[in-house]
Amino acid sequence: MLKALIVGASGYAGAQLAYYLSKHPQVEIAALTVSGNSLDAGKLISDYDLYPQLKGVVDLPLIATSDYSSIIENVDIVFLATEHVVSHDLAPYFLDKGCIVFDLSGAFRVNLADFYTQYYGFTHQYKHWLDKAVYGLAEWNDNAIKNAQLIAVPGCYPTAAQLPLKPMITEGLLDPAYWPVINAISGVSGAGRKASLKNHFCEVSIHAYSLFAHRHQPEIAYHLDQQVIFTPHLGNFKRGIHATITCRVKQGVIADDILNALNKYYKNKPLVRIYQKDWPSLKSVEGLPYCDIGFVLKDDHLIMISVEDNLLKGAAAQAMQCMNIRFGFNETTSLI
Amino acid sequence: MLKALIVGASGYAGAQLAYYLSKHPQVEIAALTVSGNSLDAGKLISDYDLYPQLKGVVDLPLIATSDYSSIIENVDIVFLATEHVVSHDLAPYFLDKGCIVFDLSGAFRVNLADFYTQYYGFTHQYKHWLDKAVYGLAEWNDNAIKNAQLIAVPGCYPTAAQLPLKPMITEGLLDPAYWPVINAISGVSGAGRKASLKNHFCEVSIHAYSLFAHRHQPEIAYHLDQQVIFTPHLGNFKRGIHATITCRVKQGVIADDILNALNKYYKNKPLVRIYQKDWPSLKSVEGLPYCDIGFVLKDDHLIMISVEDNLLKGAAAQAMQCMNIRFGFNETTSLI
Amino acid sequence: MLKALIVGASGYAGAQLAYYLSKHPQVEIAALTVSGNSLDAGKLISDYDLYPQLKGVVDLPLIATSDYSSIIENVDIVFLATEHVVSHDLAPYFLDKGCIVFDLSGAFRVNLADFYTQYYGFTHQYKHWLDKAVYGLAEWNDNAIKNAQLIAVPGCYPTAAQLPLKPMITEGLLDPAYWPVINAISGVSGAGRKASLKNHFCEVSIHAYSLFAHRHQPEIAYHLDQQVIFTPHLGNFKRGIHATITCRVKQGVIADDILNALNKYYKNKPLVRIYQKDWPSLKSVEGLPYCDIGFVLKDDHLIMISVEDNLLKGAAAQAMQCMNIRFGFNETTSLI
Amino acid sequence: MLKALIVGASGYAGAQLAYYLSKHPQVEIAALTVSGNSLDAGKLISDYDLYPQLKGVVDLPLIATSDYSSIIENVDIVFLATEHVVSHDLAPYFLDKGCIVFDLSGAFRVNLADFYTQYYGFTHQYKHWLDKAVYGLAEWNDNAIKNAQLIAVPGCYPTAAQLPLKPMITEGLLDPAYWPVINAISGVSGAGRKASLKNHFCEVSIHAYSLFAHRHQPEIAYHLDQQVIFTPHLGNFKRGIHATITCRVKQGVIADDILNALNKYYKNKPLVRIYQKDWPSLKSVEGLPYCDIGFVLKDDHLIMISVEDNLLKGAAAQAMQCMNIRFGFNETTSLI
Repeated sequence: MLKALIVGASGYAGAQLAYYLSKHPQVEIAALTVSGNSLDAGKLISDYDLYPQLKGVVDLPLIATSDYSSIIENVDIVFLATEHVVSHDLAPYFLDKGCIVFDLSGAFRVNLADFYTQYYGFTHQYKHWLDKAVYGLAEWNDNAIKNAQLIAVPGCYPTAAQLPLKPMITEGLLDPAYWPVINAISGVSGAGRKASLKNHFCEVSIHAYSLFAHRHQPEIAYHLDQQVIFTPHLGNFKRGIHATITCRVKQGVIADDILNALNKYYKNKPLVRIYQKDWPSLKSVEGLPYCDIGFVLKDDHLIMISVEDNLLKGAAAQAMQCMNIRFGFNETTSLI
Repeated sequence: MLKALIVGASGYAGAQLAYYLSKHPQVEIAALTVSGNSLDAGKLISDYDLYPQLKGVVDLPLIATSDYSSIIENVDIVFLATEHVVSHDLAPYFLDKGCIVFDLSGAFRVNLADFYTQYYGFTHQYKHWLDKAVYGLAEWNDNAIKNAQLIAVPGCYPTAAQLPLKPMITEGLLDPAYWPVINAISGVSGAGRKASLKNHFCEVSIHAYSLFAHRHQPEIAYHLDQQVIFTPHLGNFKRGIHATITCRVKQGVIADDILNALNKYYKNKPLVRIYQKDWPSLKSVEGLPYCDIGFVLKDDHLIMISVEDNLLKGAAAQAMQCMNIRFGFNETTSLI
Repeated sequence: MLKALIVGASGYAGAQLAYYLSKHPQVEIAALTVSGNSLDAGKLISDYDLYPQLKGVVDLPLIATSDYSSIIENVDIVFLATEHVVSHDLAPYFLDKGCIVFDLSGAFRVNLADFYTQYYGFTHQYKHWLDKAVYGLAEWNDNAIKNAQLIAVPGCYPTAAQLPLKPMITEGLLDPAYWPVINAISGVSGAGRKASLKNHFCEVSIHAYSLFAHRHQPEIAYHLDQQVIFTPHLGNFKRGIHATITCRVKQGVIADDILNALNKYYKNKPLVRIYQKDWPSLKSVEGLPYCDIGFVLKDDHLIMISVEDNLLKGAAAQAMQCMNIRFGFNETTSLI
Repeated sequence: MLKALIVGASGYAGAQLAYYLSKHPQVEIAALTVSGNSLDAGKLISDYDLYPQLKGVVDLPLIATSDYSSIIENVDIVFLATEHVVSHDLAPYFLDKGCIVFDLSGAFRVNLADFYTQYYGFTHQYKHWLDKAVYGLAEWNDNAIKNAQLIAVPGCYPTAAQLPLKPMITEGLLDPAYWPVINAISGVSGAGRKASLKNHFCEVSIHAYSLFAHRHQPEIAYHLDQQVIFTPHLGNFKRGIHATITCRVKQGVIADDILNALNKYYKNKPLVRIYQKDWPSLKSVEGLPYCDIGFVLKDDHLIMISVEDNLLKGAAAQAMQCMNIRFGFNETTSLI
């Protein structure tokens, strides 16, 4: 059995990783840790105030530590379900120890000068690791993932935006002068478990945020190599992302071209489901590790719909999928 | 006191109209009617199975009738909160009797040959009334409303789409080659009170519908005189519309131009509220008769956000506002 | 025009009071204040981050102050929508200045030695005001309210519990050996606007809390003069209280006795609505100032159902109702 | 591999059974059937209009049939996820063919004369099967289940009520003169997938129903051998049951007695989880096959809280658990 450490295990993605690992036949949990000043330190992850869902399933304590020397001994795999700056600071330590690191934050996703200064508010100190990091969009980078030591797992919006668009762009079906308009709506869990007025039950309401200013816009554009207009919205639901993507195809492109492009890249990918007719609803994927994609073409206007569970294909399930790929396990082990 | 008849009073818009009229100092309810085969016939509108909210407020019976001859005697005003084809059939009767008719359906909104055949599935029989009907987008057509006998009150999506876009287009700020992309999400009440799997509590989920095929797309394009891409979505909430509109301005247009255009048309309009910074959330207007509008401009990309309560500014409140305008009452009487 | 000060105007009840006062023909807002260290200080109450619903309706600033000497000059009425201990500390100041004070906290509701020490964690310093305070259960204490200077407005659970039970107990219909079992479920707004994990959108779930230990249990028992078992629950909705009360009637009591008792006390009370058959749902009162009551009797078992909007009849509307009674206005002015 | 037929597979419980069977290593799906006039006939269960969640997981068609002769050939196991009267009519057919039948309806749960006439509106025709049926409350009747041919799986309310109360009553801890007061709130899925105004998204609201008149009251009382007051409520959520049970213990009973009784019967039962302190929330069990139980004792008043997912431990998971017990598989196979 390989041994995996989950750093930031009290968050939504971290707890989900713990659940997945509890069912994994080839990997077991080495330890669950939380930040040094966490009020959850010492509690079981299945405690009443945390994840009672896990009672009897994962009853391990959350260890508060900033010193991993006693824990790291037998750890093969590290999941960083931490804030961006924490991942940035911690990842090199685990990498230098030889661990395979799956980072769920944005700290190693975009290899551009000034990107972190501009969008994340810190100056990146580990250019060599940024160079080596593999972007964990699992359906596209599986070969690179197999040989990577550091996998930067993309989050919810970038996954929901790229999976439908990447086949279109790769196959040259879109008119690049018309920037795709990506309107996405996310469940409240996307903002994490920390209490704030923004996620107060009575304050949550449908609204757009970070217009023209969300850090996922440049991440999406960078990995698609295509400018986009990305408008995130908060929805009044717990989990899930629904993305509506409006774009313009090149003259002569027909619906079969779209479907063929999707099938070309996803036909044998178990966690992407293509709708030949109709298109998915959010409920199709709640609690499930899939990204579902549908589309309609009219004249040269194309609307693509993609949905995923933001905590699963948009976070923990994709990290687990990357781990399965990295170690040669079945891609969906513990996921379905 | 003027006397108003509400036809279709058991629906969400009809019941809301009844509530508004109960508070109106110059207009009173003549009768509430429902279709002949309604199971609600004879019940009080405030019955336990209907609108217990109205208990002690409006305790009138719902009269099932297809013969209005005994009712019409003293009626000055008719609200048709009915299916499109019912409004189409009934409106001329009331108009011929001299009533002022406010139709909340789509039956008289678009004066185009073939429009009703193509989008509503019936052939329009009353071209002369279609010619005379005034489109009740209250902030724009108040002068025409004052002299109209038939007011075709626009519904939720068209109101949420047109109120932000109309000043832009009227002032010539948009590049018409780039069709505005209107993504709107509506509460479930938008589909009415009739039970169906689509509004089953456990089946409702965020999803797009009628891609490139919704009848409100040509209505919006007709009244804006601008092609648009309109994508409606169903949301998991009861009331409200949130619209995110992405468009392209002409070169040189700056944010002040946008704000000036909004202020020019809405500064003195009490039911449209302009956000100078930030932009509205759905909760800003739930249960309220306003349409709230905000925007952000970046380079030549403009995103406008508009929100309204689909049953109020998107239906009953706008109908009441039109009535107030028509009879010279204060525009907001009984509404705020 | 009388002038009213709202202390704690940034909370849910305070903002609702501001809305009611904006519509009141005989009372106007003197000032809105918040606690000294509030992040909301200086913002308009209708600010985007606060109550954009009030934009154009109440656009007054929230004044942070601990010194009311400059504000109190022309103030006739004070609403304390504040934490219990804040009300306890502030009320005497305003009372000594001659203001009529409506306290929405629990600081003056129960005139029992040790009650505040035991249930609220502070020792009450103002026994003489506790003696003079009138409990603002409006339907029962209207005569006393008319002459009171300090009205302790009961909150959501006590109102929902007492309004149905008080006629039963007053008329001697219940077997007192069987303690009424009061199961009530409250919307999340009942816990206020302060962010915490307990009201995090993703953490909210149906659950019972404070079993046998809620401070409203002794308040209810004290004012009913009857021991009760009170079990509060949190629900996954924003507003409202639904109470299911199971009790035992004395031998020979029949359904007509129950209905007669309810009618005896509430027939002429506009904000209590009695169901002769059926019983109310939560939706009957959302956003409305009523308490609705229904019941079923079988043999000697009686179940009563009462519902109210926790922020209205359970807080702001009842405070406003008390104010209307105190000053001889129509009981429902600005409320319906 | 054993072969299982699911009758009524288009309902919520039936679809869940199909999902469970898709993961079961020792049992496979023989066929999925629906009633003869179903609009879903011929569709895949994973169709867009049905359960797109199952796309790629269970892509079998729903067969509309009233003649099972061609299907029954190789069927070992039959799940009846059907209306009560349909189960009543169909079960004997499958039993006579030698199948092991798990009936999720109420048709064979209570072996009392007149019970079905009074509470279900039909006269029971199969007294000999009623005599042989084993009540599938899995934690209590496992020995009988192992040898049964017909297992009458209890539904959501009876399971949530009996699991906490049965140890109390069996150990003689309660004062039987005080009928336990069972207040339970159920998600909307409890009423099934058929569209009606009662489950219209905009009509759903917290409310009590069937006061003193729900058919589960006598079922609970019969199997507990104790009169109870059972008050069901509808909640504004999709899945889950939360039960609050207020009862009276005999003099001298202490908290340890309660805990010991729970542990005595459930310590080795993997699908019942006991809270030693605190008590469960609904979210503890959403999507999970557990019944979670907690309690607080004060003096001689005992409040027990139990929660379960109404479609899982309250339906499909308990049926699957019974199947596992019946055939000697691990009790939780395919469930956790």
